[in-house]
Amino acid sequence: MKNIFIIGVGLIGGSFALDIKSLYPTCTIFGIDKSESHLEEAIALNVIDKTANFEDLNIADLVIVAIPVDATLTLLPKVLDHIADTTIVFDVGSTKENICLKVKEHKNRRNYLAVHPIAGTEHSGPKAALQGLYKNKTNIICEVEETAFKLQEKALKLFTDLGMRIRYMNPKAHDTHIAYVSHLSHISAFMLGKTVIDKERNERDIFDMAGSGFESTVRLAKSSPAMWTPIFKLNKTNVIASLDEYIENLKHFKKMMEAEDFEAVYQEMEKTNHIKEILNGIQ
Amino acid sequence: MKNIFIIGVGLIGGSFALDIKSLYPTCTIFGIDKSESHLEEAIALNVIDKTANFEDLNIADLVIVAIPVDATLTLLPKVLDHIADTTIVFDVGSTKENICLKVKEHKNRRNYLAVHPIAGTEHSGPKAALQGLYKNKTNIICEVEETAFKLQEKALKLFTDLGMRIRYMNPKAHDTHIAYVSHLSHISAFMLGKTVIDKERNERDIFDMAGSGFESTVRLAKSSPAMWTPIFKLNKTNVIASLDEYIENLKHFKKMMEAEDFEAVYQEMEKTNHIKEILNGIQ
Repeated sequence: MKNIFIIGVGLIGGSFALDIKSLYPTCTIFGIDKSESHLEEAIALNVIDKTANFEDLNIADLVIVAIPVDATLTLLPKVLDHIADTTIVFDVGSTKENICLKVKEHKNRRNYLAVHPIAGTEHSGPKAALQGLYKNKTNIICEVEETAFKLQEKALKLFTDLGMRIRYMNPKAHDTHIAYVSHLSHISAFMLGKTVIDKERNERDIFDMAGSGFESTVRLAKSSPAMWTPIFKLNKTNVIASLDEYIENLKHFKKMMEAEDFEAVYQEMEKTNHIKEILNGIQ
Repeated sequence: MKNIFIIGVGLIGGSFALDIKSLYPTCTIFGIDKSESHLEEAIALNVIDKTANFEDLNIADLVIVAIPVDATLTLLPKVLDHIADTTIVFDVGSTKENICLKVKEHKNRRNYLAVHPIAGTEHSGPKAALQGLYKNKTNIICEVEETAFKLQEKALKLFTDLGMRIRYMNPKAHDTHIAYVSHLSHISAFMLGKTVIDKERNERDIFDMAGSGFESTVRLAKSSPAMWTPIFKLNKTNVIASLDEYIENLKHFKKMMEAEDFEAVYQEMEKTNHIKEILNGIQ
C-alpha cells in the first residue's frame, strides 16, 4: 500500500494515519478534510504527509472515511465515483444499516467495506489522534460478502497488522446492538452531566464533592456533539428503544425505593454485579 | 497516636489502616469486623496488626468506623459508649444527616467527627485496600463545631498528613449534594448495566461490541450492594429527587429525538460538554 487517503483527519482518521505510517513507513498519507485548520494541524503534528482533493482519489490504494455518519452518507458515493478498480474504501461509522443501503447499488460497491472499529476517546480533532488506539480492539465488519475478495484481504491484512480482533455481523444486528452498548451509554452520561449541572448552580460544590466514580460515569459527556448528533439521528429507532428500556429500569428502581423495598433494591444490584465478568472480558 | 481501631476492615477502613501505619510506624492497628474471614485476610495482608473487641476501645486514640451506613447508625452510639475521654471517633459514611441526628444527644458527642472522604473504588473487602487512596482527595466534614476542639485538631492533623483537602458542610447540604454527584451515578450505572444485560441474552455480543466508553459508564455497577443498599435507604428522599430529574432529562432527550429535533439534541449535548472543565477540576 503506497497511497493512503484519510478523509476526516480527527481522532479516528488521525489515529489510523499514525499507525499506518508506522507500519508502512514508505507510504504517503494524504488528508482530506472540510476544515482547513484541521488539515494544517494534522500536517504540523505529522499525522498526514500532504493534503489532497477528491480528484486525487484515483491514485489511492486505500481510502478511510472517518467523518460524522451523516457526512459519510453524502460523501461515500462520491468517493466511490472517484476511485480506481484496485482501491479499497472503508468507513468507520457507528451506524451501518443506512450507509450500506446508500451504496448498495453503486457500481463500485465491491470496493467498499463497512467497518466499525470499537475504539476512541471522548476527545476529538487531529491532536486527539493516538498511536496504538486500535491495538486489541474489536473491529466489526458488515456485509463482508459484498466486497471484492482481493480487497477484503487487503483490508484484513491492515486490521491484523494493527492488532485488531475482527467480528462479522449484519448491519441491522450491528445497529441494534451498538445502540445498547455504545449509543445509550452516551445519552446516559450526557443526561447525568446535565442533571448535576442543572442542580448545582454553584460549581464549586460539584468540584469539591465529585470523585472518580462520578468522573467515570459522566466521562462520555465530553464527547463531540458534531459526531454524536448524526449517530442518534441515523440510529433513531434503536436508540429510542434502548432509551425506553433504560428509563423503565430507572423508574422501576425508583418505585422499589418509594415502596421501601430495599431487599429488592439489593437483589437488583446484585444481579447486575454480574457485569464484572463481562467487563473483565472487555479488558 | 498509638492505638488505632478500625471498625470494618474493607476497602475504606483498610486503606486508612495502610496509610496510617506508614505515617506512624510505631502505632498498633486493631481491627474489628463482623466477618472472621475478613479479619484473617486483613491480618494476612498486614492491613491490621491485631483483632480486637468493643471492650478494648477504651485504649483507643482513634477509632474509624468504616461499615455500611445502616450498621453505623446502630454501632456508632455503642462505640461512643466504650471510648475514653481523649478518643476521637470518625465515621466515613456516604450519608451524614441521619448519623449526626442519631448521636446528637450522646454524652460523648464531642468525641465524634462526621466525615465523608470522597474516595473509593468499585471493589470491596480487605484485599481492595489501597495505600495512598486518600491523597489529594476531598474530605467533607460535617458539624465540626460539635466536636471537641482538641479532638478536631487530632483528626485534622491526620487528614493533612494523608494529603486530603478539607471541606466543611452541614449534614443536610451534604446529603442533598452527594445524592447528585455520587448516589445518582451509581443508579445510572447499575441500570445501564441491567438494560444491556437484559437485552443481550448472548453475552458474546456484549463482550465483542462494548468498548472503553461503555466500560467507563457502567463501572460503578460493580459496586457492593451491601454497601449501597443502606445508602439509598438512608438518603431516600434526596436520591429519589435526583432520580426524578435524571428520568425527566432522559425523557426530554427521547422526546427531542422522536420529534426529530436534532438541532435541539445537538444544543443539549453542547451545553453539557461544559462538564469538561468541571471534570478537569476534579483531576
